Parts: sequence; structure tokens; C-alpha cells
Amino acid sequence: MKKDQALEALTQSLGSDSVVSADNIPSQYNTDRTSNRSGYCDMLIIPSSAEEVAKALSICNRFLIPVTPRGAGTGVTGGAIPVCGGAVLSLEKLNRIIEIDEENLIATVEPCVTTGALQKLVLAKGLFYPPDPASLEECSIGGNVAESAGGMRAVKYGTTKDYLLGCEFVTPEGKIMQTGGKFVKNATGYNMAGILVGSEGTLAVITKLIMRLIPAPTEMRDILFSFPDLESAAKAVHCITRSRVVPTAIEFMEADAVRFVAKHHQIGIPFPDAGAQLLVQIDGTASAELDSQEKAIIQAVGSNATDHIIAINDDDRTRLWSARRGIRTAIEKESPVFLAEDCVVPRAAIPLFVTEVKGFLTSQGLRSVIFGHAGDGNVHIDALRDALSDEEWDQIVPVLRKGIYQIAFRHEGTISGEHGIGCVRRDYMDLAFSSDELDLMRRIKTAFDPNGILNPGKVI
Amino acid sequence: MKKDQALEALTQSLGSDSVVSADNIPSQYNTDRTSNRSGYCDMLIIPSSAEEVAKALSICNRFLIPVTPRGAGTGVTGGAIPVCGGAVLSLEKLNRIIEIDEENLIATVEPCVTTGALQKLVLAKGLFYPPDPASLEECSIGGNVAESAGGMRAVKYGTTKDYLLGCEFVTPEGKIMQTGGKFVKNATGYNMAGILVGSEGTLAVITKLIMRLIPAPTEMRDILFSFPDLESAAKAVHCITRSRVVPTAIEFMEADAVRFVAKHHQIGIPFPDAGAQLLVQIDGTASAELDSQEKAIIQAVGSNATDHIIAINDDDRTRLWSARRGIRTAIEKESPVFLAEDCVVPRAAIPLFVTEVKGFLTSQGLRSVIFGHAGDGNVHIDALRDALSDEEWDQIVPVLRKGIYQIAFRHEGTISGEHGIGCVRRDYMDLAFSSDELDLMRRIKTAFDPNGILNPGKVI
Repeated sequence: MKKDQALEALTQSLGSDSVVSADNIPSQYNTDRTSNRSGYCDMLIIPSSAEEVAKALSICNRFLIPVTPRGAGTGVTGGAIPVCGGAVLSLEKLNRIIEIDEENLIATVEPCVTTGALQKLVLAKGLFYPPDPASLEECSIGGNVAESAGGMRAVKYGTTKDYLLGCEFVTPEGKIMQTGGKFVKNATGYNMAGILVGSEGTLAVITKLIMRLIPAPTEMRDILFSFPDLESAAKAVHCITRSRVVPTAIEFMEADAVRFVAKHHQIGIPFPDAGAQLLVQIDGTASAELDSQEKAIIQAVGSNATDHIIAINDDDRTRLWSARRGIRTAIEKESPVFLAEDCVVPRAAIPLFVTEVKGFLTSQGLRSVIFGHAGDGNVHIDALRDALSDEEWDQIVPVLRKGIYQIAFRHEGTISGEHGIGCVRRDYMDLAFSSDELDLMRRIKTAFDPNGILNPGKVI
Repeated sequence: MKKDQALEALTQSLGSDSVVSADNIPSQYNTDRTSNRSGYCDMLIIPSSAEEVAKALSICNRFLIPVTPRGAGTGVTGGAIPVCGGAVLSLEKLNRIIEIDEENLIATVEPCVTTGALQKLVLAKGLFYPPDPASLEECSIGGNVAESAGGMRAVKYGTTKDYLLGCEFVTPEGKIMQTGGKFVKNATGYNMAGILVGSEGTLAVITKLIMRLIPAPTEMRDILFSFPDLESAAKAVHCITRSRVVPTAIEFMEADAVRFVAKHHQIGIPFPDAGAQLLVQIDGTASAELDSQEKAIIQAVGSNATDHIIAINDDDRTRLWSARRGIRTAIEKESPVFLAEDCVVPRAAIPLFVTEVKGFLTSQGLRSVIFGHAGDGNVHIDALRDALSDEEWDQIVPVLRKGIYQIAFRHEGTISGEHGIGCVRRDYMDLAFSSDELDLMRRIKTAFDPNGILNPGKVI
């Protein structure tokens, strides 16, 4: 059988320490953080270098073995779940920080470096790697690039894609290639890094990343605003935008999000009765600058808010962020299974979008919690399964997804802002794209991966 | 003949006002700003809408007519020169600013909007579109996207590619497609905008662009430093980087650049005898912030510089920038034909790179002027033809290009930072990329353009 032949060739080429057969594969390699989903693989490959990745892919390509690349496995749309059997290619050994180049403000890293670890290391040198996905203490930077990960600071600093200057990658045919380099400007050939970002491991396996760093802000301030309702919070966001101040983050929570956290949080949260909350973060390099930003924001928000608290030190900040950071834990306590969507809409469309989605989910008989990034239009919608049976849940999820996405499209938005498509949203791509557009994506896929072995069943 | 059939089909489909046959085509459509180069086309198509672009491409694809898309024609690597005959597709009528969305900080524009015009319009609303290629009063925003154009502000604000959120484009087969939208975050399907940026019109014709805007800085300050030599200037750049201040621009001029401008400038320039100059621009929203940046920069530069001048108002600024902006005019007065290269290297490599390139050009018996963007590693190298004959020049140009690029590669740099490859540098792509890498680019080209009709003879 070709599976056995591939396993033998892989073991011979990479050594028995780097190849594990089905029976001995720990179960976590068949899952990621996607709620209620797992897969199956026939073999696990753990290469130690780009050369070994190339050897592995070359063999799998020859035997037509599907390959699911895997970083830290923290994705929530099933990107790292092997849904077609074959091999899981774990990049866990490619976890070195190769260079922090302070002269050129550039970090060169392997894909399985933890995002948070990189941030801490560069911060100690006065530098800053801004993207901050919620899972930053565990997720890998290669996974962030694969999924085009965002985070809360996108308002001011952009997302992962704005920091990738170049990379080394291995094609499904086992060729090691380079694109970009240690420079911000580049107009030499096609922007391969541009198409690899967000391709969810379906085009190539990235083995080295060249990431842009910036000088770290030295001062930070957080302001939590309480509002009677979502409309007032939306008006406040509008006024902040008009004031031409760019906060680092503007996070919002609707009433149910506040209520859920208040119920489950051990030591209580600020403004537990708010109809909506906005958490605004500003940063910079001088107190005077932050004073004027703070003043401008409070003035812009004005009487839309009923109250606010300002945090300057870390303890205050932790307290202010406790509600926002506690949302997912609170939801899991209410209902261990839930649907997590992360649509994006033009930021001005958020209030209408949230109201309509909330209404739709309520009409489906479901409780929901809506929160997210008011500054960049990325809205997290968590719908709770509660007491529904497996069958009922499986039946309603496609209805919910389709309903939510269509509301997003109506407001000029789309399916995902930062979590990607993976396997769980793949069936909905034809809602977002025309058949011609999907056909072009498939042709690009074929250009990279003629045999279709890399991360099959994902994106397209 | 298929040319005549195509011309007839195009005239029938788009109307005779939009299609011009060879004899009646003004000569500028066969050139752009590339020194000493022109081409030939059999027909000129001037569509008025994406639908007309689609019709035109569909017909040209059917009759296998090469199509050279054209924006403002200000490119300097021959991207808009028809080198294989066929049709020039001028987008000059697609020049509307569709929307300035102040709420979402987004501009939606057609490709032939002039970059400078967009900047002025949004600035009047307190908004900022930062990319500033030197030709900004004439170049088109679609051309900027096609060429991945940069400019002087890339140090702080990035390049065109950092502002493209989405676009409408037409494939060579005549399909109108959309990618991205009015939002900063997006993880929905492949990042098509990412691969279209810098593809130099070889993959698709962009017919609408969605560009990110930011709040405009309200204060600006410029400091011109004089140095005894290039090494001192390089040390100063190093110290500015270490000070963790991010200027908007750091422009450098080596001694010959200063000397040439001094010789030809009508009313004189500051520090005409400098061994090197650095022009540093800072911006922000508060004087106090700029005061502290200015102080930090002057302190960082320290005794590396022999002198400096600070400009706060527009008149002073014009005087300070007069040398930098006068370089090309001065060169043209010395030698109407010259080679203009724009390599990029890691910024710390600039002094060595410049010294080696200067040495190489001198060894070839040529005068040269080197200047550019010290903050982002993008170096402009202009080599003067002076008294060489056409034959001698044609013989030496490939030697010069190859020599310069190889010095760039040795310093971890590459061929072009902002001008692109076009037709004039296409033969050197195999110096920058492996045959596997070029093969992958060709496959991507084929995915978009199976018949190879779009901008043939460019990039790859």
C-alpha cells in the first residue's frame, strides 16, 4: 500500500525519531482548538529543518499522501485538523529565534516560535512586535501568518500580514524557496509572501519568517467606558474616529457579554450592569502625548457614556481587562459547546450588524454573546448550544453560519476577520465569492500544489 | 488577420470612440518615463468602465492579442511600454474618486486617480494617504499598486502595499472579480490583493481600489544635516535607529549628488560642500512630541554631523528639500541618458553597499550619483552615459546592471525597492531567483492568464 511505502520512505529519509505511525500518535495531533471537531491521520512527521520538510513533502507528493501542516494547534476553524487522513506535518521542532536584528529592526524566526515569547524577547530590547491574537502565549508565529491572524491592536498597528517582510517556504513538491528579505520595500518579482499570508497551509509550508519590528511604545493607558446601550457605544466609536485620535485598541462588549462575565467572574468586574462597554487603549512614548490623547477621547465620547475608569498601572489595567478577557471562559461555563464566528464589517456598520445578528440568533431560539474589535470592524459572535442535542445542533449550525454571513455581506462585510476558513467554513465560500473567483483561487492552489496534497479539505 | 478581426470586434463592442488603430495612436502610448526606450502597438483601447475592460480583455484573449495596460505612464522600468505589439489598454478614463469614507477611513478610487490629487483631497478632511512616490503629482494610484511603489515616507508609514485593503480586478479572460473590502482585517480566502500588488499588470487589470487612510499628522519638521563623509552619515542613521525615534523620512545624498545639484541649482543649496547630507523629516500631532523627537534625533546624530538646519515652515522646508528634489534635473543636465537603478538592502548595509557600487562604477569609467532612502534601505544609483556612443552604452548597461545587482545580493539586498522589473530588468530575474522560484511565478502567471496575453515581456 502506498501509505506503508510512504511511511517506510519517510522513516528511511528522516530517521525513526521523526516519523510516528498511526497507533502511536498522541490524540492532540488530530485536533486543534475548534469546538467539537477532530480528524484522523495515518502518520505524524516531525522534521527538524527546512531540508527535512522538503524531503517529507517530496515523498508525500510522490505517494500522493495528504499532508496537514501544524503549528501550535491553537486555530479555531480546523486548519490543523487532518480531515483526509494521510500525514500530519508538525513544525514543533522549528522553534528557534534565529536573529533579532536591532540595527535593521527585524526578527528572523522559525515558524513554531510562540508569538508571546517573541514579543517578550524584543520588548526587552525596546522593540515591539504588535500583532496580539488572543492565544498569543501559546500560538505560533507561523500559524499566525498562515491564518492571517489579527488581534486587538489592529486599529493602530495592523495585523500579522503587515509585519511579514519575507520568508523561506517549501512547496508541496519539496522545493525550498525564498521571498522578500530584510527590507521594507520590495518591487522585485511577484509578492509571494502576500499570497502565502492567510493561505492556511494550503499552498506551501513556511519554514522561516522575516518579521518587521518597530520601536516599543513606552507608555500605555486604558480607559473603560460604560454605556446605557450599544447605540451609545457605537456613537462614541464614531466620535473617537472623528477626533482623529488612533487608539491602539477599541474593544466592545454588548450587554449579554458583560452579564455573562459578571455572573462567572470570581471577584467581580467594573460596570457589571452596563448596557455596553468600550475598552479603549492608547499608547505612545511621552506622557504629554497620552494626556492629550486621553483628553481627546474622553471629550469625544462625552455624554454617550455614563461613566469611565482610567488605568495607568498594570494592576488597574488587569482589572479593566478582566471582563473582556473573561468572556470565553464565562461562555464555556454556560455552554461547553458553542459556535464562534468572527465576521468583519466596515467599522461604521458594527451597531446595525450586531443588532441584526443578535435578533437573528434570538429568533433561532439561541442565547448569544457578541463582542470584539470596534476599531477594525471585527465582530466575535458566540452562539450557545445550551440544551440542544447533537442532532439538533448539527442541523442548526449551517443555518446559523449562513444567516450570520449573509447579514455580514449585506453590510459590505465578509466571513472572517482573523480566524480563517479552515474546514468548518469551507462550504460557505461560495456565499462570499463567485464561481469565477473560486476557480481562480483553485488555479493558484494548483500552481503551488499540482497534486493537491497540501492541507486538503481547507479553504477551497 | 486576427489583428484586424480583433480591432473590428473591439470597435463593435466598445464603440469607435474607445478604440484607436495604429496610425492614429499618439506616440506617448508607446513609451513611459524609462530612459531611452519605446515600443510599438497595433491598437489603443480606452475603456470607460470595468465592464468595458472586461469586454476588451475578453476579445483580446479570444484573438490572442497582447495587451499592455497603462496608467499615467510614469514608470521607469518600461512596465507600460508595449514590447510585443498588440493593444495598449489605457485606463485614463477610469479616474474617478468614488468615495472618501471618513467614517471608515477609506478611499475607494478608480486606478487613474492621481496619487497627489487623492492626497490633497483627503488632507482637506484631516486624513492622510502616506505613500509618496517622487512622481506623485502625475502618477496614478493604480500604477502605484501595480509597481508596489514606495516613496520617502516608507520608514514610518510603509509603502503602497500597506494601504491596499481590496480591489476590483479584471482577469485576462475578461472576468470581473472582487477581493477584500472596507476593512483592515480579513482572513477569508486567498489574499488576492497581496499577489496583485507589484505584479506590474501581468496578472490582471485593476479597475477599482479600496485604500486605507489614516488621520493626518498636523505638525511636521525637517532637519538637514551636513557630514564630512558618507561613513559619518551612516553612523548617524545607526544612532537615530538606536534612539528608537521613527522619522517619517531619512534621505541621504553622497558627495557627488550634492555637488551635481550645487552646480546646476539656480539659487544655491545649503551645505554645497558636504561630503554627505541627511535630510530627516518628523511628523506628529503635537509640538511637544516633535520637540522631543527633534531633540532625540539631534542628540543621536551628535558630532557625526558638522552642522544642521531645522525647517518648521513651508518656505524653509522647500529650501531644505531643494537639493534632494533637484538631483534628477541636475543629472539630466549633465547627461541626458543615464542608468537609474533602485536596489534595496538591509538599511545597515547601505554605507558598504554605496561604497562598493561607487567603486564598481568608477572602475567602469563612469560618473555616478547615489542617493535615496537611508531609513528603508532603498538606494538610487544613477550612472551617467556622458560621452559614450549608443553602441558602447548598450554594451555596458548589462554589465553595470549585473555588477550592481550582485553587490546588492552580497549585502542581502535585491534588484528593486520601488521601481519594479518591467522589461528593462527582466533578463536579470535569474540572478535574484532560482529556476524553481521563477517556475512558480510562471505558474501563478498562467493561473491568471492562461494564454499569456497580459503585459507580455514584463517581470518574468
